[in-house]
Amino acid sequence: MTLLEALDYASVFIFALTGALVASRAQLDIVGFAFVASLTAVGGGTVRDLLLNRHPIFWIDAPGLIGTAVIAAVLVFFTAHLFESRLRVLTWLDACALAVAVPAGTGLALSLGHHPATVVLMGMVTGCLGGLMRDVVCNEVPLVLKQGELYVTAAFAGATAAVLGVHFLPQGTALLLCAAVTLILRAGSLAFGWRLPVYRPRPPRS
Amino acid sequence: MTLLEALDYASVFIFALTGALVASRAQLDIVGFAFVASLTAVGGGTVRDLLLNRHPIFWIDAPGLIGTAVIAAVLVFFTAHLFESRLRVLTWLDACALAVAVPAGTGLALSLGHHPATVVLMGMVTGCLGGLMRDVVCNEVPLVLKQGELYVTAAFAGATAAVLGVHFLPQGTALLLCAAVTLILRAGSLAFGWRLPVYRPRPPRS
Amino acid sequence: MTLLEALDYASVFIFALTGALVASRAQLDIVGFAFVASLTAVGGGTVRDLLLNRHPIFWIDAPGLIGTAVIAAVLVFFTAHLFESRLRVLTWLDACALAVAVPAGTGLALSLGHHPATVVLMGMVTGCLGGLMRDVVCNEVPLVLKQGELYVTAAFAGATAAVLGVHFLPQGTALLLCAAVTLILRAGSLAFGWRLPVYRPRPPRS
Repeated sequence: MTLLEALDYASVFIFALTGALVASRAQLDIVGFAFVASLTAVGGGTVRDLLLNRHPIFWIDAPGLIGTAVIAAVLVFFTAHLFESRLRVLTWLDACALAVAVPAGTGLALSLGHHPATVVLMGMVTGCLGGLMRDVVCNEVPLVLKQGELYVTAAFAGATAAVLGVHFLPQGTALLLCAAVTLILRAGSLAFGWRLPVYRPRPPRS
Repeated sequence: MTLLEALDYASVFIFALTGALVASRAQLDIVGFAFVASLTAVGGGTVRDLLLNRHPIFWIDAPGLIGTAVIAAVLVFFTAHLFESRLRVLTWLDACALAVAVPAGTGLALSLGHHPATVVLMGMVTGCLGGLMRDVVCNEVPLVLKQGELYVTAAFAGATAAVLGVHFLPQGTALLLCAAVTLILRAGSLAFGWRLPVYRPRPPRS
Repeated sequence: MTLLEALDYASVFIFALTGALVASRAQLDIVGFAFVASLTAVGGGTVRDLLLNRHPIFWIDAPGLIGTAVIAAVLVFFTAHLFESRLRVLTWLDACALAVAVPAGTGLALSLGHHPATVVLMGMVTGCLGGLMRDVVCNEVPLVLKQGELYVTAAFAGATAAVLGVHFLPQGTALLLCAAVTLILRAGSLAFGWRLPVYRPRPPRS
């Protein structure tokens, strides 16, 4: 199994956990859990593969990946009630999934030799679109759009770090750097409230 | 016309009726009816064709299919006020559309020789995604996600029945079985309240 | 730069402005502005290219297009507070973007030699889907679905005008006609309340 395949499996598993947690908030049955988990798990990578015209899509005829998502869904279905705050667990797992999916998308686009701007975009698409689909389908306010939290920004910074880093580092190390930058920014935003200034209709005069 | 083409036409027509009914709840004009009807009618099959890299997409350069959706939209525009309960009609038509679209998607993936897990998924995607797009676009709570109703589950069971059945039955009969299983489960859920246990934050102690 | 490429750039820029304005209503940070702006700017054309199996997608490896969207996002981030009514500016810019994107999509499908019905649909998809994605992702009521306003209808009429016009006029002129018809209908709907009759559950007896 290559590094990119391992990243795909890890990102599928963690995103599936978040999908199942959102399904638990919507009180679905176990097949609903598996559906939302799978959609979340493969959504971003599917869009990436469609945009890059990369067939077969990474999970078609690789039933282990969807199987992984289903296992995650079953796991959450039977254990989610053990957690004190599912929303908190969800948010942190989502941060981990982002930090795995962004290097997965970035690494793939890098190894296909695309333009640096395209590589950064593919990292952002792979990282952000699965969670976005999950939230749109389940009528949650998209995490991607929470005011003032670093989310798309963390994905952007991580992917950019990889694109720059690959000039100086081996690709595996550059992707590790990508994961670290993404996770640190996202986690810092959750834990310490790091943020960029948001748009205000009328900025206060100083 | 092959069986698969006939299934495509039937599923397009019935899904278009449901799309137009949702458009009537949103009080759109006739072009809006045609737009939502077409989106619902071809949404699931389009995603299936994109995922399987099957070009041209089934409705591109087959204007009869979009024409069918438009006719359904016009029909509903002028007759929907005759129904006592549009929501009830909508729900039951949607069940019929599901029972046609799942075998359509399953049959196509079967005849392309995909892995059984992929075949089941394509049946579910073709059956569920058109209705999901309809509901997301029109700001309705997705039928797919209604608590405790068998919907994705019915699609899953139907597609699985076809994948197993095709080992013992001719493909046409296996697809008929698929339609029957899907329809019976979905209709049983609507009429008799059949359901799987849903997730409960704190399960009651016994 | 060909006419079609120029239309792509113009439509990307104006749609990106509308995306950034919606981001300002959601009070996102500057990376969120760029994300929503890019999604809006390339969403419709991306779906068009995927449906027509046209690779690379028009903005992949053409970083100038995404760059244009980002510039529009930055522009809006720093100037949106200057506008009296952002919603009004948004609605009118969206009308202009529609009037550019519909001929862009129609022209492309025409030059690929598709069936007239497919050409009209591609014009509508290119024109309407970017704005629809923007509104779904940001939890706004889709402009496409505003009761009784000509929106999809304007796109439909414009694309139809081009498909008919191309029999009598040079393609460039037919696309100009398409833009004019789309803009006039949409603007007339906004300014003078032009509309088609909408569906009413119980039509009043006369």
